Amino acid sequence: MRMKHALIPTLREVPGEAKVDSHRLMLKAGLARQLAAGVYTLLPLGLKALRNVQSIIREEMDAIGAQEMLMPALHPAELWQQSGRWEQYGPELMRLTDRNGSSFALGATHEEVVTSLIANEIKSYRKLPVTVYQLQTKFRDERRPRFGVLRSREFVMKDAYSFDTTWEGLDETYARMYDAYTAIFNRCGLTFRAVEADPGTIGGTDTHEFMALCAIGEDTIVSCTSCGYAANIEKAEVSPSKSIAVSTSGAVPKLLEKMHTPDVRTIEQLTRFFDCSADRIVKAVAYRVDDRVVLALVRGDYAINELKLKHALKGSDAAMLEEDEIAEAFGCKPGFIGPFGVPGVTVVADRSIRGIRDGAAGANEQDFHWTGLDAERDLPGVPFFDLRNMTESDPCPKCGEPVRFTEGIEVGHVFKLGTKYSDALNAACLTEQGSLAPIIMGCYGIGVTRTVAAIIEQHHDEHGIIWPLEAAPYFIHLICVSMNDEVQRETAEALYASLRAKGCEVLYDDRDERPGVKFKDADLLGMPVRITVGKKAAEGAVECSTRAERVHTDVPLQELDAYLSAIMKRNDSHIRTDSL
Amino acid sequence: MRMKHALIPTLREVPGEAKVDSHRLMLKAGLARQLAAGVYTLLPLGLKALRNVQSIIREEMDAIGAQEMLMPALHPAELWQQSGRWEQYGPELMRLTDRNGSSFALGATHEEVVTSLIANEIKSYRKLPVTVYQLQTKFRDERRPRFGVLRSREFVMKDAYSFDTTWEGLDETYARMYDAYTAIFNRCGLTFRAVEADPGTIGGTDTHEFMALCAIGEDTIVSCTSCGYAANIEKAEVSPSKSIAVSTSGAVPKLLEKMHTPDVRTIEQLTRFFDCSADRIVKAVAYRVDDRVVLALVRGDYAINELKLKHALKGSDAAMLEEDEIAEAFGCKPGFIGPFGVPGVTVVADRSIRGIRDGAAGANEQDFHWTGLDAERDLPGVPFFDLRNMTESDPCPKCGEPVRFTEGIEVGHVFKLGTKYSDALNAACLTEQGSLAPIIMGCYGIGVTRTVAAIIEQHHDEHGIIWPLEAAPYFIHLICVSMNDEVQRETAEALYASLRAKGCEVLYDDRDERPGVKFKDADLLGMPVRITVGKKAAEGAVECSTRAERVHTDVPLQELDAYLSAIMKRNDSHIRTDSL
Repeated sequence: MRMKHALIPTLREVPGEAKVDSHRLMLKAGLARQLAAGVYTLLPLGLKALRNVQSIIREEMDAIGAQEMLMPALHPAELWQQSGRWEQYGPELMRLTDRNGSSFALGATHEEVVTSLIANEIKSYRKLPVTVYQLQTKFRDERRPRFGVLRSREFVMKDAYSFDTTWEGLDETYARMYDAYTAIFNRCGLTFRAVEADPGTIGGTDTHEFMALCAIGEDTIVSCTSCGYAANIEKAEVSPSKSIAVSTSGAVPKLLEKMHTPDVRTIEQLTRFFDCSADRIVKAVAYRVDDRVVLALVRGDYAINELKLKHALKGSDAAMLEEDEIAEAFGCKPGFIGPFGVPGVTVVADRSIRGIRDGAAGANEQDFHWTGLDAERDLPGVPFFDLRNMTESDPCPKCGEPVRFTEGIEVGHVFKLGTKYSDALNAACLTEQGSLAPIIMGCYGIGVTRTVAAIIEQHHDEHGIIWPLEAAPYFIHLICVSMNDEVQRETAEALYASLRAKGCEVLYDDRDERPGVKFKDADLLGMPVRITVGKKAAEGAVECSTRAERVHTDVPLQELDAYLSAIMKRNDSHIRTDSL
Repeated sequence: MRMKHALIPTLREVPGEAKVDSHRLMLKAGLARQLAAGVYTLLPLGLKALRNVQSIIREEMDAIGAQEMLMPALHPAELWQQSGRWEQYGPELMRLTDRNGSSFALGATHEEVVTSLIANEIKSYRKLPVTVYQLQTKFRDERRPRFGVLRSREFVMKDAYSFDTTWEGLDETYARMYDAYTAIFNRCGLTFRAVEADPGTIGGTDTHEFMALCAIGEDTIVSCTSCGYAANIEKAEVSPSKSIAVSTSGAVPKLLEKMHTPDVRTIEQLTRFFDCSADRIVKAVAYRVDDRVVLALVRGDYAINELKLKHALKGSDAAMLEEDEIAEAFGCKPGFIGPFGVPGVTVVADRSIRGIRDGAAGANEQDFHWTGLDAERDLPGVPFFDLRNMTESDPCPKCGEPVRFTEGIEVGHVFKLGTKYSDALNAACLTEQGSLAPIIMGCYGIGVTRTVAAIIEQHHDEHGIIWPLEAAPYFIHLICVSMNDEVQRETAEALYASLRAKGCEVLYDDRDERPGVKFKDADLLGMPVRITVGKKAAEGAVECSTRAERVHTDVPLQELDAYLSAIMKRNDSHIRTDSL
């Protein structure tokens, strides 16, 4: 591609809303542009990277016998009603009405559609197992789209669905898919970890997330320092034994007493005011879960896990109340809300609350708190659940040894669905024994657009992107230092033609720009190899460097092929071993 | 691909709603399944054909320097309001509201999105010309989805947009695109014709449709038998001179007279009742155009052209009234409606009406018509337009010679947009002279899903599909006649492996089915070459045939490569010359 008329709008300044490196770099290097909150256009370079990732996925999916197809984005509401998810999925599911008044969902995922298809087309075990997949655009109305394409509302996903006759068959399919995902993310150059995950509204049992390790706070991974346990903090179970951490302050039981606590609203302020540790404060957080106002209680030193809260209440959507909504429901500011005297509010508590004696809690009155709270005595009707996030001082729920936290981005997800959807949508087939049995399903997703961002998140430096070989939009960035110098221009043009004839993907900077601008852009765009045609062209040599090392070497033109194949070989071995 | 577990659900019986061959065959050969009216899943074979067409398009687009990108399907309403099309586009544009109450359109086309992008990114003539394209899913809420994927509500489209600084530049880009389209449809094996077309709500001036010639009544092409004129009947202009075909019945002027015409409702019945020719009947058709009830008048022997009617009234949507709506607006059944005494109804007339003397028209009273109608005298306030379809007896609007009608399906469309969108969305750039000027645009679409259907429409026989080489999901259909015969099975397996190793796309029928079933399916699925491993395998020979000729030849295994390359070469030359 000649850069002169290429739509690669690099930026010197990046809008302030770009908070993470991949978002900044995708804007800066001209890979993507925002159209609306969480809705992005992929520009030519961004799309090329996406298509490279898609090719890797296709190859690995085809290799395990999965068959590509393409399902629609418009889903009749009836199908989602049949599975129960029309209600359950909540506002993340975008909905619309057609000109005849029929309701549709915009596909956020395709279990319903694919299951009803298979229910119609496959009637006998002899046609199974079958795994199908698609590379298709998904729509999810995220409450807080952020980090550029990492959490967006419209994105390309690879979703696969497997159909087996036996549970053992599903186990085998799941294992093959797990291995294919490992191969895919390795080829993408990602450092990642497969962890236990929450099944969410998809349903099902066994499920793993593939997490690209990046410290951007999108997801936290809990891993055991001793056994193999690794889980998304969303799902990591807190051991019940540890959560009843009794913190009594003495033997004499205290009585509830209302205290004037002017302007004391944060946990920190409360511990100072009462001169106690945070584990004696009842932290109260107000949510709307579907249509209910919910007050979730957790010990002052812990944090509520929204997903656990949602599951505990069997809700489909949980959102923290805004200050004005709190004022309406509780009659005071957020810092003073608490469990007593709030009719119409559902109160639930994390198990960490159980151990509290002589605790403090908001009084639902401006500038007042209760003290002397005894959780067992004073919260008789309140149900206890595991509602909090694990902390690094909690033990591993499997073996009790210490855990370690890492941050990551979910790039893939594999699920054993079982018969949830085949039951709901009547996908049954004749078994070898002649009876009808529900088909046993799995589903397997990769966030393709997000994978591109994760690659950038892991592969960049202060100068720009450092594309791994297989994802790189172009293998070579060819620079002609001075287009006005006849020798340089002719050498560059000849190189451009000959490299392309050999099947090389080349981005050719043929612009009339200063060399400094060209070099800066080459670093920013991050193609694996840079070939610079400069003054040495007169002696039949060019300057070569890899983006990763940025060490420049003069290479005689007749040795260029050897230089390039050496890099490809090196990258190849790098891919296969380094990130395993 | 092994057929045993392939998702190729061929059918023996096809649902009755499939009225055209491509729809029937796409269902029968297991290429597609309907999910909702006008919404289809492409199954593996259907998607493979689609992806082949996409590859052809990519190659030809890249060859003319167009750059691929990917724009979203979710379009903020504001953009469409800015161009005026939020109102104009009518109910075909699907709309939805997100969780925050913001309105979005589902992309039916991308002029607004791409123009606003370019307006932001390109400020100087030095970055132009630029042409971008995408292969993306479009949503259009067709009033009458039909013919399977030929007229559907969600489909894959290639849309390209060009940005030039001068009108001459646009002409050049347009010509290059026109040539690329010609190359694309040739490679797809289509017989087609480029014709003048209606710009519709896209706007713009110069525009051509690429019509795949198929007699399914989707579109009618008018072509001149003498000059080069060819146009979609939607847009073909009726020469005014011809439309004032005076058909007086004598010199004495008749007066309007109301006649009792019991049960006389069709044009044919009226001509019999009044013993006159159809050109003396005022045919009245009631429409709703946006919010107005409109009565369109045309001579009894002609037909109203809805698109011309819509344009004449500057409307965005026109639909014929249903019988109950007619009863409400006109107080009678459809056969008796007419131009007099209907307050609140907009009456417009085709120019063919002008010549009518002593005509008949409905009286807006059950079982009554007027006679003695003189159009000039009795319809003083009614505006005249070109509202009717051309007929084969009308002359060419360019040269006056006779025309010929052909039927076709629109597979591509090229437009010179000019500055319609750059004006509306402020896409201006600095010219060489230092002033600001609106960018000059073109837009260019290919219905990719529809092209697959058009290919099948043109390439099939009574046995099934006959895929042209470049679109074929697989090049070879390999049949092992008896999987229980060890020699046959081993020969077939070895062939499958070696052909794939050579890069051949092979569909391998390894099922335990009767040979008759396998042969029937091979004919139905229509891959270009069939290789049958049967009894001759013991002598080292297989039976080969092409789907087009269905003549079977024994080919020794060692000569198979030569046989296959001969077919590829033949097909190659076929593509390049035959359909030009």
